[in-house]
Amino acid sequence: MKLNLLNKHQDALNTAIKALHERTFYARYPENPSPEVYGENADKEGREKYKSHLNEKFDELLQQEPEQWVGQEDSPYEQQPLNIKYPYFAPETLVNRAEEAYHQWRKVKPADRAAILVESLERMKERFFEIAYATMHTTGQAYMMSFQASGPHAADRALEAVAAGLEEQTRFPETTEWEKPMGKYNLKLNKTWKAVPKGVALVIGCSTFPTWNTVPGMYASLVTGNPVIVKPHPKAVLPIAIVVAEVQKVLQENGLNPNICQLAVDADDHLITKELAENPKVKLIDYTGGTEFGNYVESLPGKTTFTEKTGVNSIIIDSVEDLDKVAQNLAFSVSLYSGQMCTAPQNFFIPEGGVKVAGGETVPFEEVVRKISDAVSGLVNNPKAGPHVLGAIQNPATSERVKSAASIKGKEVLSTCDFSNPMFANARTCTPVIYEVDATEKESYSRELFGPIMLIIKTKDTNQSVELAKEMAMNYGAISCGAYTTDPEVKEKIMDEMSLAGTPVSFNLTGGIYVNQNASFSDFHVTGGNPAGNASFTNPEFVIKRFTWVGFREPVAG
Amino acid sequence: MKLNLLNKHQDALNTAIKALHERTFYARYPENPSPEVYGENADKEGREKYKSHLNEKFDELLQQEPEQWVGQEDSPYEQQPLNIKYPYFAPETLVNRAEEAYHQWRKVKPADRAAILVESLERMKERFFEIAYATMHTTGQAYMMSFQASGPHAADRALEAVAAGLEEQTRFPETTEWEKPMGKYNLKLNKTWKAVPKGVALVIGCSTFPTWNTVPGMYASLVTGNPVIVKPHPKAVLPIAIVVAEVQKVLQENGLNPNICQLAVDADDHLITKELAENPKVKLIDYTGGTEFGNYVESLPGKTTFTEKTGVNSIIIDSVEDLDKVAQNLAFSVSLYSGQMCTAPQNFFIPEGGVKVAGGETVPFEEVVRKISDAVSGLVNNPKAGPHVLGAIQNPATSERVKSAASIKGKEVLSTCDFSNPMFANARTCTPVIYEVDATEKESYSRELFGPIMLIIKTKDTNQSVELAKEMAMNYGAISCGAYTTDPEVKEKIMDEMSLAGTPVSFNLTGGIYVNQNASFSDFHVTGGNPAGNASFTNPEFVIKRFTWVGFREPVAG
Repeated sequence: MKLNLLNKHQDALNTAIKALHERTFYARYPENPSPEVYGENADKEGREKYKSHLNEKFDELLQQEPEQWVGQEDSPYEQQPLNIKYPYFAPETLVNRAEEAYHQWRKVKPADRAAILVESLERMKERFFEIAYATMHTTGQAYMMSFQASGPHAADRALEAVAAGLEEQTRFPETTEWEKPMGKYNLKLNKTWKAVPKGVALVIGCSTFPTWNTVPGMYASLVTGNPVIVKPHPKAVLPIAIVVAEVQKVLQENGLNPNICQLAVDADDHLITKELAENPKVKLIDYTGGTEFGNYVESLPGKTTFTEKTGVNSIIIDSVEDLDKVAQNLAFSVSLYSGQMCTAPQNFFIPEGGVKVAGGETVPFEEVVRKISDAVSGLVNNPKAGPHVLGAIQNPATSERVKSAASIKGKEVLSTCDFSNPMFANARTCTPVIYEVDATEKESYSRELFGPIMLIIKTKDTNQSVELAKEMAMNYGAISCGAYTTDPEVKEKIMDEMSLAGTPVSFNLTGGIYVNQNASFSDFHVTGGNPAGNASFTNPEFVIKRFTWVGFREPVAG
Repeated sequence: MKLNLLNKHQDALNTAIKALHERTFYARYPENPSPEVYGENADKEGREKYKSHLNEKFDELLQQEPEQWVGQEDSPYEQQPLNIKYPYFAPETLVNRAEEAYHQWRKVKPADRAAILVESLERMKERFFEIAYATMHTTGQAYMMSFQASGPHAADRALEAVAAGLEEQTRFPETTEWEKPMGKYNLKLNKTWKAVPKGVALVIGCSTFPTWNTVPGMYASLVTGNPVIVKPHPKAVLPIAIVVAEVQKVLQENGLNPNICQLAVDADDHLITKELAENPKVKLIDYTGGTEFGNYVESLPGKTTFTEKTGVNSIIIDSVEDLDKVAQNLAFSVSLYSGQMCTAPQNFFIPEGGVKVAGGETVPFEEVVRKISDAVSGLVNNPKAGPHVLGAIQNPATSERVKSAASIKGKEVLSTCDFSNPMFANARTCTPVIYEVDATEKESYSRELFGPIMLIIKTKDTNQSVELAKEMAMNYGAISCGAYTTDPEVKEKIMDEMSLAGTPVSFNLTGGIYVNQNASFSDFHVTGGNPAGNASFTNPEFVIKRFTWVGFREPVAG
């Protein structure tokens, strides 16, 4: 390599590997988009760079000879096309180029691959604001989330995957002398081991978190020596296109084939995901999105798959210290990015007998519901908070789902209202709806209702709440669970039952921390232990399934 | 627990974990069955104990209320039934008992589980000779292999799985305080993680290596907190029944439910494997055996599977130092346990132009074949070696396969001969056959021919040999590969090509080390990277897929 990138990034890699095991707070990329951190003009320049892409060809990629130029993105804030055109390549071309690049990339040492990838994240950092605006205008996320989730948080998740991949590939010696006492003599063998990458990898992105959900699989496959084809959602290409372009530039600067990491954009008139996924040369597939397509991906023969599908997340309210604080916390969780997060809570299980609060008093069920409903209304109607929390709706189908109550058998507690974003008069928006549903109406709450839809489920008691939350997670998947209890025995029971459903639990969150949040280097995202997905950011399994340990041995000469 | 087993076995566990990473020679259980190691009367007492089981009920298991007593074992040496009867339980009963035991076992700490399992291996050690005779008279292995493979080597493979499982479950902290600087204040969360076992595990054994191939999956599932149902091959029950009995005794002594590890013997009139495997409560399946059933196991929805199926193992001969030594080594490899090993070589690729030897001379193809054939005849006809190397044939179908050349399109170089074992006049035996096949006759050599069948395939050159060996491994699986070359470039090429086929390679073996052998704590057995199996003894993947990491978090009080 021309640049000594390993020297440059060895400390970063060591620190990241250490952080993985300590699992306390660690971030390489600051989440605060302030001028003190990123420079006085960073925001302004980022916005301008974003705007410079509109109505133009995205020509930064180093992939040669596109067949055509395509693009279908719309801004949920402006409800009009971005009109950015990306190069299109036939799936066969992409796979063949990846296969060719494989035989170069797999021979680069894991530590050098890791250093190249960290360098690409440093370049990505220079473009966090541009990526933030690209994310806003494809996903509908508000500015702060767009910056944090698609920029520093995504880069840290990528670094986490790089660190885990490097560690796992170096956990066994490259070479050793094996010496076995045989009585009269010692038998001596030289042994070596290789972590052999599995082959062409495909990463299928989603429309709501175009970098955050894509980079873990992308960097995990890359660090383990597999060439990657990144297939973004056709409605959210720009944020990840910028990242892929930076990876390609770093590869080329280091004398490597930029096709080690390719962008695959759907044609305007047909989607290419299935054709890519079914190609026999594609060995690894990462996927984020709906359950139906996720199940299809998992069922493909001869592939190792890593999926994040949908889930039904629960909140269990048993007893609390301060109900108002709890209500405010939950109102924020359900409103954040209008519930378009895979970690957003949907089913709120509350006992019909009410909720015990500090001092021993029990607040009746109806009052608990009212407090939550008031907290949601208060948040939404606060002009300083509402627009920055809710953002816009990525997909018109989500607004429709929120507005039509037809399929939910329950009482409407709060209906969605017209909500206008002061900065974007044409933004596609809606505010959370709340339904009260009886525990017996399982059909209403036993599926994901993507968007800001809150179902308050009246249960007999906390035991039933836990039982139903567990059943939902085991049968339909769950990515998060929040629980409120001041009783250590109830807490223990919730931990035990939800652990059997492979669902992480956040207890008694109030203030500035929410069940939706997931910290790199500390919180495993998705467990792989229920139908919400078969993989986890980033446990060892997420990286070791991308390569094969193969050993070689030979008698020591002489 | 009543006994302080963790104190007793902590050192053994630490040493084993260290050995896993150094991958140089390590064995806890001595492979030499000598009186100096195991005691003056160990062999005699073991033989007597084995004989005491014949024609009796095996009543050591702690599983209650059998429905009937069953048994179908025959001795390949005596060709008559052992007439040992084992308790039979309906699959439903076994699974329900396992499920009940699960909720006790999963709550035992990983380190305590590991200590209990090491204790069971220490008890197994006391019965190595008894297990050796049980193995001889079920599998047909010769005495030495029966002792080593089913005793110390199996116990070391089990210990390896225990060590790997313990290490992986303790790689992340049980608890940590996560503290994130938020500018004006720090956000503090207490976080905890649990390695949650997946549930009921099934281990399906084979007829040729009843303990060696069973204990890795069995101990891997147990150490990670999963209750195990061990379903041996109906023709090879006794060796593993003894091991299961010892595990049950240690569990009961420690106040635990012996059903944490159950033996499941097929009824005399029907097999129970499919009913067990398809039970929805069964989450983990380990399997060793034929490809067809293995593919069925892998295809079962909702299961995590670990398979070792069949493969087509190759020897590539390019150039050698000493052809006679090579021929002797290969003759031993193909004769050992009459080729009934998953690591036995079958396809011998030799260039039509002959093989270069030390000094630069090239030995013609025909002479290479003759030397190999002579070496096989010499070994078989040596009364001091033959019987101890060949053993007996486990399954009559194997002898039939060796005797019928019908399906092989090639020239018979060596035919099987009547071979009588001096100690067992009625032993079912056959000696290796050798066919010479042209490289174009792919159909003849592109499937596993289980037993002592050696195909010498005449190729254009070493490049074609490598290409075909790789193709066979990628398409039909391979567990081992031997290669002979004195050319470093050829060696590099073979390593590279076979690594892409997920196949380990032994180079230039001569003397007392054979391609069939696989050392615990050093050689990964099966890679999981080709159709011969999806799992590997014991890489991290072999244990981490048996549990789920689940996290919990809560704000720090105050």
